[in-house]
Amino acid sequence: MHRERFYTLSASCPDQVGIIARVTGFIAEHGGWILESRFHADDLDGRYFMRIEVKAESLPFHLAEFRSRFQPLANDLQMDWRINDSAVKKRVVVLVSKQEHCLYDLLARWQSKELDIEIACVISNHDTFKGFVEWHGIPFHHVPVPADNKAAAYAEVQRLFEEVHGDTMVLARYMQILSPELCAAYPGRILNIHHSFLPSFVGAKPYHQAYTRGVKLIGATCHYVTEALDQGPIIEQDVIRIDHSDSVEDMVRYGKDIEKTVLARGLRYHLEDRVLVHGNKTVVFR
Amino acid sequence: MHRERFYTLSASCPDQVGIIARVTGFIAEHGGWILESRFHADDLDGRYFMRIEVKAESLPFHLAEFRSRFQPLANDLQMDWRINDSAVKKRVVVLVSKQEHCLYDLLARWQSKELDIEIACVISNHDTFKGFVEWHGIPFHHVPVPADNKAAAYAEVQRLFEEVHGDTMVLARYMQILSPELCAAYPGRILNIHHSFLPSFVGAKPYHQAYTRGVKLIGATCHYVTEALDQGPIIEQDVIRIDHSDSVEDMVRYGKDIEKTVLARGLRYHLEDRVLVHGNKTVVFR
Amino acid sequence: MHRERFYTLSASCPDQVGIIARVTGFIAEHGGWILESRFHADDLDGRYFMRIEVKAESLPFHLAEFRSRFQPLANDLQMDWRINDSAVKKRVVVLVSKQEHCLYDLLARWQSKELDIEIACVISNHDTFKGFVEWHGIPFHHVPVPADNKAAAYAEVQRLFEEVHGDTMVLARYMQILSPELCAAYPGRILNIHHSFLPSFVGAKPYHQAYTRGVKLIGATCHYVTEALDQGPIIEQDVIRIDHSDSVEDMVRYGKDIEKTVLARGLRYHLEDRVLVHGNKTVVFR
Amino acid sequence: MHRERFYTLSASCPDQVGIIARVTGFIAEHGGWILESRFHADDLDGRYFMRIEVKAESLPFHLAEFRSRFQPLANDLQMDWRINDSAVKKRVVVLVSKQEHCLYDLLARWQSKELDIEIACVISNHDTFKGFVEWHGIPFHHVPVPADNKAAAYAEVQRLFEEVHGDTMVLARYMQILSPELCAAYPGRILNIHHSFLPSFVGAKPYHQAYTRGVKLIGATCHYVTEALDQGPIIEQDVIRIDHSDSVEDMVRYGKDIEKTVLARGLRYHLEDRVLVHGNKTVVFR
Repeated sequence: MHRERFYTLSASCPDQVGIIARVTGFIAEHGGWILESRFHADDLDGRYFMRIEVKAESLPFHLAEFRSRFQPLANDLQMDWRINDSAVKKRVVVLVSKQEHCLYDLLARWQSKELDIEIACVISNHDTFKGFVEWHGIPFHHVPVPADNKAAAYAEVQRLFEEVHGDTMVLARYMQILSPELCAAYPGRILNIHHSFLPSFVGAKPYHQAYTRGVKLIGATCHYVTEALDQGPIIEQDVIRIDHSDSVEDMVRYGKDIEKTVLARGLRYHLEDRVLVHGNKTVVFR
Repeated sequence: MHRERFYTLSASCPDQVGIIARVTGFIAEHGGWILESRFHADDLDGRYFMRIEVKAESLPFHLAEFRSRFQPLANDLQMDWRINDSAVKKRVVVLVSKQEHCLYDLLARWQSKELDIEIACVISNHDTFKGFVEWHGIPFHHVPVPADNKAAAYAEVQRLFEEVHGDTMVLARYMQILSPELCAAYPGRILNIHHSFLPSFVGAKPYHQAYTRGVKLIGATCHYVTEALDQGPIIEQDVIRIDHSDSVEDMVRYGKDIEKTVLARGLRYHLEDRVLVHGNKTVVFR
Repeated sequence: MHRERFYTLSASCPDQVGIIARVTGFIAEHGGWILESRFHADDLDGRYFMRIEVKAESLPFHLAEFRSRFQPLANDLQMDWRINDSAVKKRVVVLVSKQEHCLYDLLARWQSKELDIEIACVISNHDTFKGFVEWHGIPFHHVPVPADNKAAAYAEVQRLFEEVHGDTMVLARYMQILSPELCAAYPGRILNIHHSFLPSFVGAKPYHQAYTRGVKLIGATCHYVTEALDQGPIIEQDVIRIDHSDSVEDMVRYGKDIEKTVLARGLRYHLEDRVLVHGNKTVVFR
Repeated sequence: MHRERFYTLSASCPDQVGIIARVTGFIAEHGGWILESRFHADDLDGRYFMRIEVKAESLPFHLAEFRSRFQPLANDLQMDWRINDSAVKKRVVVLVSKQEHCLYDLLARWQSKELDIEIACVISNHDTFKGFVEWHGIPFHHVPVPADNKAAAYAEVQRLFEEVHGDTMVLARYMQILSPELCAAYPGRILNIHHSFLPSFVGAKPYHQAYTRGVKLIGATCHYVTEALDQGPIIEQDVIRIDHSDSVEDMVRYGKDIEKTVLARGLRYHLEDRVLVHGNKTVVFR
C-alpha cells in the first residue's frame, strides 16, 4: 500500500489480445504512473480482470475527466469498470445487534485511521451500543425489527442508508435477515460476516452444528449478501483450531476472534477495490 | 514424547468422584512412574476420558499381569480400556490406488523410524507401486476391485489383513468405497483421509465442488471409516489458503500437501493411543 | 471450560512416584469432583507440573480450609502451588500508551464478560484514552513518564497497582520500559505483548528490522516481564503472512491483529492459571 | 496455473512512466495473449518488477526470436530480464545427506509430475539413498566431503552440476556448508532449506536453541545460498505450533513436515520464475 494519493481502476471484460496494452497505454499516454497492478485471466469463461493503482498527481486531469476520456476504450472492450480516489473516504453504515466484538474492532480500526473511512452511522435493532457509538461522535439509530412489521424496519434502514449517502453496508453480527428487496437494492455493496466456514453449517446455530459433528477447526466467512441466505459470493474466510475440551460456549468465544478478523479483512479488500464479483465467486487482488 | 519404554493406558468410563485417585492409586501402589497424563470430563453425557503413560521399567510386572490385576478396578468403574506397550510395534496395512503422495510420505516416516511401526503389507487395486513398495522390503498385494465383484475383492483385503495380524488399516487415498461388512469388522481401526474439510463437500470430486462455490480455503479430514460414507468420527483436519487464480488442478496439488500431513498426524495420534472414540466424535489427547 | 464454579489447583514439584495418586487421593477423600486435569513430567530436570479443576460445590469446605488441609501434603511433596476460585474475579491493571488496538480489544472482551475480570484501572503515560476508558466506568490515571524522572513515575504506577490490590499488570502496547525494581516486584504477574516473533528482532522497531531482512511472516509474543528486556518467559506467540508488496506501515497494521490476539490468548491462559513458569520457559496447559 | 504451453517473462528495471504499456504493447503488437500477470513498484528505491505469462501459440515466433526482438526495448528500459518456456523442463540437481524427508517429498512430486522437472542427478556425501534414487532411474553420485579436503569435493559437485547442465541446485537437508566459490558461481540458483524461522536461531542445532528459549512455534526457511551462512535472500517460510510437552526430538519431527513443505513451495516459486531477487530480499509473485 502506498501513502501518496492514487486512483484505483478495477475492471473486468471479455478476454482478447491486447487488453493490458490498451489500458496501460491509455494511462501512459497521459503520463500516468502505475504503482501496484494485477491482472487475471479466467480460463473457463474467458473473462479478464484487472486492478491498477495510478499516482493521482501523475495525471494531468481529475477523475471526472478520466472517466469521460476512458469511457470509449471501456466501451470498446465491453468493460465493467470503476475508478476510485484514495483521497475520498468511503461512507460505511454499520448494522449491529447485541454482540460487541465486531463493532469494537471496527471502531478501533476507524479510530486509528487504519480503516480510512467515514462511519456515516450505526443502525441497530437494539439500543445496547447507543452510548458507546455516540461517545465516538458517530450517529446511532435504533431501528427495532418487530416480527410483525419487518418491512417497515427495512424500509427505514434503506432510508437511513440513502440519507447518509452510504457506499457500503456492513452487517457486523446483525442478527436479522435482510429483506430480499434490500439485498437486491445494493448488490456487491452489503457485506456480512457469517460465523461458520461456509458452505459448512449454513443457517442457524452453526457452532452447535460444528460441536455436534465434532470438527477440529471452526471458521468464519465474509461474503456479499444476496437474496439467497448464506449463499452470496465469498470474499474471505479463516479458521481456528478447537478440540474435544471446547464447549459450544468456548467455540463461540474462539469464533469471535475469527469473525472480527475475517470481517475486517474482507471489508478492507472491498474498500480498497480489491474485490471483483464474478458470478457467485470473487476475484480478490490482495 | 519420551524415549524410554512406556505403557499407555487409554480409557473412558462414567464420571464419578475419585476416578483419577483410584486409577493412579493402583499405579502408584505398584511403583508405577507416570510420565504424561491427561483427563477430560465430558459435561454433556457424564463420561470421563483418560490417557496415562507409565514408565515400563517402574512396574514390577509386565502387561499381561497388569491387565489381569487392573481388570477388577476397571470392572468396578465400568471402564472401556486398553493398555499398549511402546516397545511393541503396531502392524499397519496400507491401502492405496494410483496417487503417490500419501504413500511416499508414510514410507519416508517409516524409513526414518519417525513412525515406529511395522508396515505389514501394502494392498492396491492397481499395480502402480508394486516395485516401489517391494524395493522397501514390504510385501505388495495387487487386489483389483472389479465393478461386478467387489465382494470378493473386499473379502481378499480382509483375508490379507487377518493373515498379517493387522492392527490398523490406512486408506492412503484408496479410491474405492469399502464394503459395509469390512467397515463393521474393524470399528475404530480403519483410517481414511478425505480430500475436503468435512462436512463441506461430502462425496465425489470435492475440489470441483470447492472451486464452484468459490471458497478461500480448502482442507482435508482424517477420520475413522464407518458404514456411513464420509460420516465417521473426525480425528484431525487442516486447511490451506487458495485464491481466485487457482484452478481445480492447483487445488488438487495444494490439497495433496494437506492430505498427507493430516493423514500422518491422525495416524500418529491413533497409533499413540491418543484417540478415544466417543459416539460419532473423538477425544484426541494431543 | 466449565460453567459451574470450580477451583483450579496449579502446582509443580520434584518428580517421584505417586504424585498424582496422592494429590487426587486427597481431593477424592473429601468428595472433590475433578473436571479437566493435566499433568506433565519434564524429563530434563525431573520436575512435575499439574493443573486440576475441582467442582467447588463438591467439596465440603471453602478455599481457606482447603489451603490449610492441603499444605502438609504440599510440604511433603516440596510443592510450589496455588489454588484459585473461578467465582473470584482477578483484578487487572492495564498500562497503555497511544495505540488503541489492544485496549479496545481487551475492553470488548471485558464488556462481553468473555474475560471475566475486574479492570481495576487503566494507567497511561498519555491522556489519549481518558474519555474512552472512563465512559466504560473504569478509573483512568494519567502518569507521565518524563525522561528525567522515570523513577517517580514507576513508583506511582506501583502505588496505584497496590492501592487497587491488582493481581496482574498488562502492558497493552505500553511504550515505556519498566524499571528493574517494578519488574522484580511482581515476577510472573506482569504480561507484555512484544511486536515481533521473539527472539527475532529484539528491541526497538522490530517491523523495520523484519522489513529489512525480508522475512515472509511477522509475529507477536506475549511474555512475562523480567528485568532483562524482551527476554522473559514466553507464554504465547503467533505469526501472520506478509509479502514483498507490504510496506513497514502495512506490517504495522497486520501486526496489530496478531498483537491483540496473542495478548488476549496469553492473558486468558494466565488468568485461568494455565501457565506455570519453569526457569525461563513456561508450561501452558491450554 | 495454466495447462497450455506458455512463456514466462520475469524482469525488473528502474521505475518510470509507461513500462507496462511498452512491454505489453510489444507483446500485443505480435499477437501475444497474456494469461496471468503481475507488477510491483518498490517505493523505496524506485525499482519495478514484473512477471508476465504469454500463451506460446499466440506468438508468431519462438523464444530465440522473442529474445532478439525484445532486447532493444529491454536495453532502453535498463532491464534485467529472462524468459522461459513452460515446455522446457528445468534441470535440477539435488544434494542430500542422511535425512530422507525432503528427498522422498521431492521425488514423489517429481513422480506425479506435480514438479515438472528433470532431476538430472542426486549428489550425497553419504551413500544411504543410492538404491532408492537409482530405483527411480535417477543417477546418484556419492561425493564424500572429507574434513581435510573439502575443496576437491566441492569441485566435484561443481563438475557434476556442469556436466548435466544443471539449472538449479537444491540442498535438501545437505549437512555441509558449500564453499564460497561454489556459492558465488551460481547466484540465485542454489536453494537451501534451513530448519529455523530465520533470522531466529542462525547456525547449528536450531531446534536445541528453540527448545532452550521456550518458543511456542518453530519454523523453516527456504532461501538462496550466498557466501554468508544463513543470510541469503528468503524465498519462503512457515511455522508450526509446539508446546512444553515437546522434546527436542519432537521438534525435529514436527520440523521435518515444515521443512519439506517450505522447500517444495520455495522450489516451485523458483522454477516457475516467480522469484526476483532484490538486494538481499525477494519479490515473490505467488
